[in-house]
Amino acid sequence: MAQSPIRPTDDQARALARDLLANARHAALAVLHPDTGAPFVSRIALGLTPQGQPMTLISSLALHTRALRAAPGCSLLVGDPPAKGDPLAFPRLTVTATARFIDRATADHAALRDHYLASHPKSKLYADFADFSFVAFAPISAALNGGFGKAYDLTPDDLT
Amino acid sequence: MAQSPIRPTDDQARALARDLLANARHAALAVLHPDTGAPFVSRIALGLTPQGQPMTLISSLALHTRALRAAPGCSLLVGDPPAKGDPLAFPRLTVTATARFIDRATADHAALRDHYLASHPKSKLYADFADFSFVAFAPISAALNGGFGKAYDLTPDDLT
Repeated sequence: MAQSPIRPTDDQARALARDLLANARHAALAVLHPDTGAPFVSRIALGLTPQGQPMTLISSLALHTRALRAAPGCSLLVGDPPAKGDPLAFPRLTVTATARFIDRATADHAALRDHYLASHPKSKLYADFADFSFVAFAPISAALNGGFGKAYDLTPDDLT
Repeated sequence: MAQSPIRPTDDQARALARDLLANARHAALAVLHPDTGAPFVSRIALGLTPQGQPMTLISSLALHTRALRAAPGCSLLVGDPPAKGDPLAFPRLTVTATARFIDRATADHAALRDHYLASHPKSKLYADFADFSFVAFAPISAALNGGFGKAYDLTPDDLT
C-alpha cells in the first residue's frame, strides 16, 4: 500500500466537490491560533459568493476572526456525514484558502452582503452589527475524499 | 459588545463538553500542513481512550498522519449540528491537544486497541494493517460553544 492514494481528477470528482461546497451551511475552519501559532478549528456559517467562492459572516468576538486578521491562511472542511453509518465512508472536501475581509465601504461589500443574506435570511438580524464582518475565502487548492480510498487533489478552477 | 464573551465554567458546561466528546464518532482535525506550515483540516474517526481522552485510528497514507508525525500540536472539533436549523445554534467543542502515536510494541497499544475496537468493531478490518496507527490526543485546553453567546474556556480536567 505504498503507492499514491490520489486518483486523477475527473468530471465526477469536480461535480462532487462543487456539490459539497454548494450544499454546505457550515464548515470547520482551521486557523493558526493568534497567541500560540498552533492549529485551531471551530465552526463557522458558510455560504458562497456570486462567483462560487466560500464566504462567511463572523464576529470579532470569536477567536477565529482575530486569527484570520493576523494570518489569513486557513482551511475549510465541508460535507457532513449522516447520523448513521461510518462517517469516513461519506464524501468531504478540504479547501485550503486565503481569507479576505470585505471592507464595508466598498461596492463589493454590498454585493456579497446581499448575496449571502439571500441564502441566510436569519443573518439579517446581526449582519450589520459593527463587530460582524463578511469574509471571502480564495481557494488555493482542495482535497476531495469521496469515501475510503477515493482521494483527489483539486485546483481552484475545479471548484467553480 | 466589547466585554469578554467567555462565561464562568460550571458543571452544566463540563457535562455538555463531556457529552459532546463521548458521543462523537468523528472529528474535524486541524494540523499544520507538513510542507507549507498552513492550517489543514480533515475528518478523522474518533473514540475515547479508557481514560476518556480522544483517540483515533489513522492511515500513514493520509496527509494528517504525516502532519502529526512532523508537528503533534493539533485541534479537534466535535459536535454535529442536526440537518435542520441554524448550525451555529447547536453546541460544539474545540479541543486543543498534543497527538501521541501509540507504539505497537507496548502494553498501552493493546489496551487502547481493544478499547477502541469495542466501540468501532468495523475498524477491526484494517486496525492491524502496518500503515495504520492509533493516536491518542492529550488535551491542553478546550473551547466550548453551547450556541450563540454561550462560550466557555475549559481545562483538561473539565473534560474527564
